[in-house]
Amino acid sequence: MNGADTLIETAVRAGVEVCFANPGTTEMHLVAALDRAPRMRAVLGLFEGVCTGAADGYGRMTGRPAATLLHLGPGFANGIANLHNARRARTPVVNWVGDQASWHRAADAPLTSDIESLAQPVGWVRTNAGAATLARDGADAIAAAQDAPGRVATLVVPADAAWDDAAGAATPGVPKPPAAVGETTIAEAADVLGRAGAVLLLGGVAALSEAGVRAAHRIASGTGCRVLSETFSSRLELGADLPVAPPLPYFPEQAIDALDYATHVVLAGARDPVAFFGYAGQPSRLLRDDQPVATLAAPADDALGALEALAAQVGTDGRVVPRPEAAPATGPLTVGCLGQTLAALLPDGAIVVNEAATTGLAFNAFAPGAARHTSLGLTGGAIGQGLPCAVGAAIACPDRPVTAFQADGSGLYTVQALWTMARESLDVTVVVCANRAYRILQAELARAGIAEPGPKARALTDLAHPIVDWVALAKGFGVPGVSVHDTEGFAAAYRRALAEPGPQLIEAVLQG
Amino acid sequence: MNGADTLIETAVRAGVEVCFANPGTTEMHLVAALDRAPRMRAVLGLFEGVCTGAADGYGRMTGRPAATLLHLGPGFANGIANLHNARRARTPVVNWVGDQASWHRAADAPLTSDIESLAQPVGWVRTNAGAATLARDGADAIAAAQDAPGRVATLVVPADAAWDDAAGAATPGVPKPPAAVGETTIAEAADVLGRAGAVLLLGGVAALSEAGVRAAHRIASGTGCRVLSETFSSRLELGADLPVAPPLPYFPEQAIDALDYATHVVLAGARDPVAFFGYAGQPSRLLRDDQPVATLAAPADDALGALEALAAQVGTDGRVVPRPEAAPATGPLTVGCLGQTLAALLPDGAIVVNEAATTGLAFNAFAPGAARHTSLGLTGGAIGQGLPCAVGAAIACPDRPVTAFQADGSGLYTVQALWTMARESLDVTVVVCANRAYRILQAELARAGIAEPGPKARALTDLAHPIVDWVALAKGFGVPGVSVHDTEGFAAAYRRALAEPGPQLIEAVLQG
Repeated sequence: MNGADTLIETAVRAGVEVCFANPGTTEMHLVAALDRAPRMRAVLGLFEGVCTGAADGYGRMTGRPAATLLHLGPGFANGIANLHNARRARTPVVNWVGDQASWHRAADAPLTSDIESLAQPVGWVRTNAGAATLARDGADAIAAAQDAPGRVATLVVPADAAWDDAAGAATPGVPKPPAAVGETTIAEAADVLGRAGAVLLLGGVAALSEAGVRAAHRIASGTGCRVLSETFSSRLELGADLPVAPPLPYFPEQAIDALDYATHVVLAGARDPVAFFGYAGQPSRLLRDDQPVATLAAPADDALGALEALAAQVGTDGRVVPRPEAAPATGPLTVGCLGQTLAALLPDGAIVVNEAATTGLAFNAFAPGAARHTSLGLTGGAIGQGLPCAVGAAIACPDRPVTAFQADGSGLYTVQALWTMARESLDVTVVVCANRAYRILQAELARAGIAEPGPKARALTDLAHPIVDWVALAKGFGVPGVSVHDTEGFAAAYRRALAEPGPQLIEAVLQG
Repeated sequence: MNGADTLIETAVRAGVEVCFANPGTTEMHLVAALDRAPRMRAVLGLFEGVCTGAADGYGRMTGRPAATLLHLGPGFANGIANLHNARRARTPVVNWVGDQASWHRAADAPLTSDIESLAQPVGWVRTNAGAATLARDGADAIAAAQDAPGRVATLVVPADAAWDDAAGAATPGVPKPPAAVGETTIAEAADVLGRAGAVLLLGGVAALSEAGVRAAHRIASGTGCRVLSETFSSRLELGADLPVAPPLPYFPEQAIDALDYATHVVLAGARDPVAFFGYAGQPSRLLRDDQPVATLAAPADDALGALEALAAQVGTDGRVVPRPEAAPATGPLTVGCLGQTLAALLPDGAIVVNEAATTGLAFNAFAPGAARHTSLGLTGGAIGQGLPCAVGAAIACPDRPVTAFQADGSGLYTVQALWTMARESLDVTVVVCANRAYRILQAELARAGIAEPGPKARALTDLAHPIVDWVALAKGFGVPGVSVHDTEGFAAAYRRALAEPGPQLIEAVLQG
């Protein structure tokens, strides 16, 4: 048994079952150890951002960490953007980053670099000091990833620690559970929420679970407060008969408008809301100083328990006023028609990975009228999250249909994820919202006061010269694809894609 | 005039002419400023690794930095792998990384992260403190990038520093020039190289320039020393009547064999050679303790001046024994036949970006028999360098044909570079060496003693399930492509591609 075996076996004992891997030379002994651990699944990504985004999606759906296996500093760096999203989603993820053999680091060989400096911005990091302690470090990393509310943990594994002999696996660590919320805090929240103009702001997986949104709805029924959710949720349950916790709008002016009503705000797993970006003349915080904020549950607290306790005190019945079901639209394939039709046809139990950017914001209006589904959002704003996250969600939940609702610009950052969908025969329908522009940046240029962008600004936000042929890209990675240009065509293609096993891609060429 | 204008104008004054950009919201004022600077070209990449790799290729070919324009920590992170290669190549590169408005950082908005921690491993980094000092910081960054021998310099630009009013551009800084090598050092090198078994090891752009390799050849003619070069060169001139400085082999056993002959080693721009990776039972250093090493020129020294001074003292004539020209091969498309045929057909003045991994190592044997060309290597070992580097080389040298000799596995990391080739109509011929495996890792598994890899190890080094269709990927990104399966087919396709303007892709499906 070598160090690599003890690391993998420790992970298996701790409940880690999947390793999203893009290994290199320094990871070969870890790769061999995967073959000696029957309960550990290995999934290859052609680019590290696919692996880390998949681990994020997997962790969001299961609540348990997947592992990634990455190659030294540059390989880890390629995965940072999606680890940043995982950090903001508070997803448990464990990275195993192979490094030079410990005695070879001083030689400063070409691939050597400062991995800890790269890893620190996304979470917990430790460099293992040898095979004898690799299992223990592995257990610590997994426990660190699972400390409430969840985080990214990176373990640097020198090649010799993997290949040297070692004694055996370590006992899994005990992650820090969510902190219970005290009765005083709950009573204070009850008091605040009973006042006119109170808002309950939900954030995090627990508060936005089915039980969480139902409890929040009962609280709202009993107190008259409004319920909102953070702009981008890690995992949000919605559709069918579930109560709606509308997300805060993306642009700060609109979010400030949405919160203007609030006389008091109570946070349940959410943070004090801030603008995504700072704009000249706009504030950082979305709430005014005269809108007091109380915390029912901080992100590391037991938000669901707190909501349920509060609902037991002040809640009334959980009946939800029936909403009209979404019906498919017809005609030109506008952002609205696409969102409405997708909502109408979404299969029951679907997982929607929403990285559709401007198109996705429009979909939010229709999603509550869709069948019961789970929505995964772009928590950290690092684009290129959608397709990898869909890979991870599909591996986590093989019995649920996954729809990757994907902006074209963002999708190109990690388009290699299509290949893993094909290799693993994942039931993912990729809907590419092809507006052939960084449309959100065109809006941002205008917001920055650049009313008439020059040729360079236009070129830097344009994806139509040349047009990206998504059907060809899909074919290149082994995924069947079709391009549609009107709403009826989209509806037909989406129905067909859902009926087929394995991944399918629909390029929805948007009008206007 | 705002801060953004002063930054761009300062760069123009310092001779920076190209900006490889993948901007986001925080960079909109910098984008607008590009339009007000007619002498600054803006080139869009669909992924940040394309931008940084292109800046590396551009800097290698011109000796001057290009700028990159990247979006906060995650955008920068996506560019780190190719910045790592630039760092090892000692290429001057300037990164402008937009960040949150300074007053918005404390809000810890979703995209906020520790950019300096991410940037430190690749070189110089500074965070600007406001519009008034942005031009000065910009000048400092450019000078830092150009300090001998060249490096990566990252300037973090808060959004408000870009949009706030500012006084004007700054005077370009004065980079630190290469240090002159003293006469004593040259005399010592002359003495050492005159001994039996002496080796002169060249590294860096200056020593491997035409003048550098010719001076080294004259030294060898006069002293009897052997001339070698580092395994992966930033930029190496070779072919036609140029003397050859054979690269050290990649695997350490072979490199040690190649150096076994040496009684003394003199370094000219090269580092004391070390193994790419540490292996159990193998040393870090490739030289033994009884092989003394003298430094004629360290990387920051004037290696070319030193070589020419040395050649003037001990060199004889620079005549090169004529080599047989490479002739195209025929038959099955093996690694050898591909390399031989590529060498035979390479057009005069070509730039070859060699990220062909196992196939590229075979090509090295044939390259000296090719027409006069410039070769750019994978200096830092961070794969995904080839296609972006070809973009940058083609933009730097629009009158020279570029061949991207590209491994299939590596090429997939930054395949989005194909789109920029199409958009900019770059004269790049991409030759994809399609062995449909991470072949080098299959070799590394064997070297690690894993004689019979299990199903997971086989899957993690396999790219054939499903097969990646490179012609479809090229079409998706707007590049014409063709797949060839024998040597004659490759020769015909390569000749056709050279005759066509704009980018072309040839998928060379390798046999055996």
